[in-house]
Amino acid sequence: MRTNGGRIMKKDGRLFDYIFNPSSLAIIGASPHDLATLAQVSTKIRDRLFLVNPKYTEVRGQKCYPSISDVESEIDYVLLLVSAPVVPQVLEECIQKGVKVAQIYTAGFSETGFPERIELEKRLKQMANGKIRIIGPNCLGVYCPRSGLSIVPEAPMEEGHVGVVAQSGSVAESFSYFANTKNLRFSKVVSYGNGIDLDAPDFLEYLADDPDTKIIAFYIEGTRNAARLKMALTKAAKEKPVIAIKGGMTEQGMRAAVSHTAAMTGAPHIWKSLFQQTGALQVESFDEMVNTVMAFDGSPLPSGKAVSIITNSGGFSVIQTDFCLKAGIEVPRFSWETIEALGKWVPLAGTSIGNPLDAWPIYYNVSCSGNLADIIKVVSSDRNIHSLVFHFDQFRYLRRALGQAVEAHMKILIDLMLEGCQHARQKEKKPVMVSISLDPYLEDEADRNCSLMMKRAFMAKRFPVYANLDAAIRALSQLYRFGHRRMPE
Amino acid sequence: MRTNGGRIMKKDGRLFDYIFNPSSLAIIGASPHDLATLAQVSTKIRDRLFLVNPKYTEVRGQKCYPSISDVESEIDYVLLLVSAPVVPQVLEECIQKGVKVAQIYTAGFSETGFPERIELEKRLKQMANGKIRIIGPNCLGVYCPRSGLSIVPEAPMEEGHVGVVAQSGSVAESFSYFANTKNLRFSKVVSYGNGIDLDAPDFLEYLADDPDTKIIAFYIEGTRNAARLKMALTKAAKEKPVIAIKGGMTEQGMRAAVSHTAAMTGAPHIWKSLFQQTGALQVESFDEMVNTVMAFDGSPLPSGKAVSIITNSGGFSVIQTDFCLKAGIEVPRFSWETIEALGKWVPLAGTSIGNPLDAWPIYYNVSCSGNLADIIKVVSSDRNIHSLVFHFDQFRYLRRALGQAVEAHMKILIDLMLEGCQHARQKEKKPVMVSISLDPYLEDEADRNCSLMMKRAFMAKRFPVYANLDAAIRALSQLYRFGHRRMPE
Repeated sequence: MRTNGGRIMKKDGRLFDYIFNPSSLAIIGASPHDLATLAQVSTKIRDRLFLVNPKYTEVRGQKCYPSISDVESEIDYVLLLVSAPVVPQVLEECIQKGVKVAQIYTAGFSETGFPERIELEKRLKQMANGKIRIIGPNCLGVYCPRSGLSIVPEAPMEEGHVGVVAQSGSVAESFSYFANTKNLRFSKVVSYGNGIDLDAPDFLEYLADDPDTKIIAFYIEGTRNAARLKMALTKAAKEKPVIAIKGGMTEQGMRAAVSHTAAMTGAPHIWKSLFQQTGALQVESFDEMVNTVMAFDGSPLPSGKAVSIITNSGGFSVIQTDFCLKAGIEVPRFSWETIEALGKWVPLAGTSIGNPLDAWPIYYNVSCSGNLADIIKVVSSDRNIHSLVFHFDQFRYLRRALGQAVEAHMKILIDLMLEGCQHARQKEKKPVMVSISLDPYLEDEADRNCSLMMKRAFMAKRFPVYANLDAAIRALSQLYRFGHRRMPE
Repeated sequence: MRTNGGRIMKKDGRLFDYIFNPSSLAIIGASPHDLATLAQVSTKIRDRLFLVNPKYTEVRGQKCYPSISDVESEIDYVLLLVSAPVVPQVLEECIQKGVKVAQIYTAGFSETGFPERIELEKRLKQMANGKIRIIGPNCLGVYCPRSGLSIVPEAPMEEGHVGVVAQSGSVAESFSYFANTKNLRFSKVVSYGNGIDLDAPDFLEYLADDPDTKIIAFYIEGTRNAARLKMALTKAAKEKPVIAIKGGMTEQGMRAAVSHTAAMTGAPHIWKSLFQQTGALQVESFDEMVNTVMAFDGSPLPSGKAVSIITNSGGFSVIQTDFCLKAGIEVPRFSWETIEALGKWVPLAGTSIGNPLDAWPIYYNVSCSGNLADIIKVVSSDRNIHSLVFHFDQFRYLRRALGQAVEAHMKILIDLMLEGCQHARQKEKKPVMVSISLDPYLEDEADRNCSLMMKRAFMAKRFPVYANLDAAIRALSQLYRFGHRRMPE
């Protein structure tokens, strides 16, 4: 099933070192403006990097070789950026040179649907057989902060615990680009495209065992070996949360997938049950995938499905309660003790002392009793409640009421919120999702800046922060699902 | 069923003039910092405004009267901001004064669940009987740019064609606050809270006949008269798109609704079929409601369910194709002529010349042939295609490739996009939803500024602009649903 070379290289255990931490890397077809070169020359991998292109003698300050055979050092890993028809010849040179792994960045193979391009791809596979391992073609390759391998120049180089296996380059690129915005840090990210040799199961199995990877995000369009994929998913999802998207769940989506990565797609219900049986958490969109990864990154698992929503809008809290129920979690009544305690602190009119707690006056109280920290603590200690969603959409109201005093007030409020939320997470061991409403196109800069300030404060304490309640609730429901599977009966 | 006074005042046809265009307005309980006063003193209604509060002689530069009886002029409409226990006495003074309509802003009535507060609300209803009409209690009231009535100080005062009937104040407030961000302009917005007298059907019937209102957004938690609501909805939805949310569709959501507006809620399936039978378009969240209103505001209706997505990401286009199918629209193949035309202009490798059209190189071509305008025009003229979603998420790629030249390039691109999209809408009569990816928390200011620039350019030409593809697709599916209902069999 696997090539001989594959088996040999997997046995010696170094295959994934060649990929994620190569002692030397070459980019064949490097140019001053391509994304792959741009990304690698800006990280520490630069010291182990060799650029190859007969058109240049220098690219971005690095020497450029006419061909791979002109490079003096041994090369573990190459990125191939040359055009599709030239790939076989260059791949042959790589084999001659003793390169261990070739990542074929180039697109234009079987995914085009043209017979000659399908043949060309087959030829690559035959050439590789036992002599070199291939990632791709039609992929963006690897992002690994530890070694400095990168997909985009904006990706942070601090190490983290999120692993990504993505058939789509866009998905890998987006994770890398949004790492800072989402406060995510990665162990290993790989985009494998058409996957003619190294495929999803290879990477999943590796990340399942990888001690640096604690959460796995997985985007797949199709597989050539469902049995092996199932084994790999089962293994990975047993150890770690695996958040999965199957692209192409509808007939027309499958058609799009075929023309994207030439994937063998399969019926939607088969995929759904594959994810269910293996314990992978299926999500519907890239945003939901990112939001779910954020929830897992630093939150304790909830011990049950009961959430409390602390908010400041009645109408929205009604809609959101419905939304929780649809997402498979619940918004139960508070215990009597909680209601009694809140009743002392929250005025009656215009509020709802229940769950959701819809109580705008609490945002005006910064005294030492009955303030926001006290309220969050009381709610989080309710025995009926297993998790918290703290939603803030109050800045414009505060500003209207307080005028210029609003900034100083917000700083105190943020400290109180953090105090309460940290209590919930550390003392009560309950996960807290934070939602700080922010419309992407809002041009009210005061409101935007306040939201950013809050977001940074919460992210600095490693709370997942979402720009809307729906996202927070959906992510929490995945935490619950994962935890529930692991609970003793 | 309705009060005598109601019948009399509706017969003379002036009731809604008193509400939306009062010749005089009083705020009883006005203070320097309450939102209602803040909102009214900043608009032209100021000239017809009387402030009442024995605590002040002046508020925000306006004279303040000790009581309503001290005001010399006749008063059409009052806003009551006094505390709940005082409301009956003040309402009596209003009746004595001959006030036509009292909007009771004050909360703390039946929605609290306390028997004495339920009684207090009943008393208001009995007092009003035939002598004065009531909006509320527990509501934010009216926003009407034509007269200057306002809910929040940030709301624009240009007139528009969107009418809003909302049981929740937050929903009405959010529409007002986000008007500028969403490029929406309103005819009449009303938040009616507990609705003890004037209720959803009254406002829906009025807006159905109102020539200034072309689209109606409707948020409801419950009704006391389902038959009358059904009649009103049927009438309104026959004339105009009515985009509706029922808050409290689950048991726990209903509990939240009861404590929010004391609404009689009813089983979810009854509401679902109510909306279906009447032709109202049910949506699930406030965001979806706003997005749908934006789609109706200026777009032609699609003549069928076939959409083309023009994008730049393979992985995401696969996910989005699935999403379209789930939303009830389709992403069919292009006609052969379209594929042939596109094949001349779009390189093969790394693209997908199909629907979705995933073709990043088209963002680099600003020559006079085969550019983005040409491509959008060709796609929009395809006879298999009834609508377009144009998705842009390419700025960071362009910037990496073009460096400082990216800004000038973007300006040319935006003109090309607009040319193509205007062709689709004006010449082909096909709706175009525009999605310009922007993460709310993105702190890459160059990317953000580019997105804002594009958004403003498209909004200036009255295209609906969304920050993500899901929102655009969902809104389009509602346009299709509305149009489909009206199509000749």
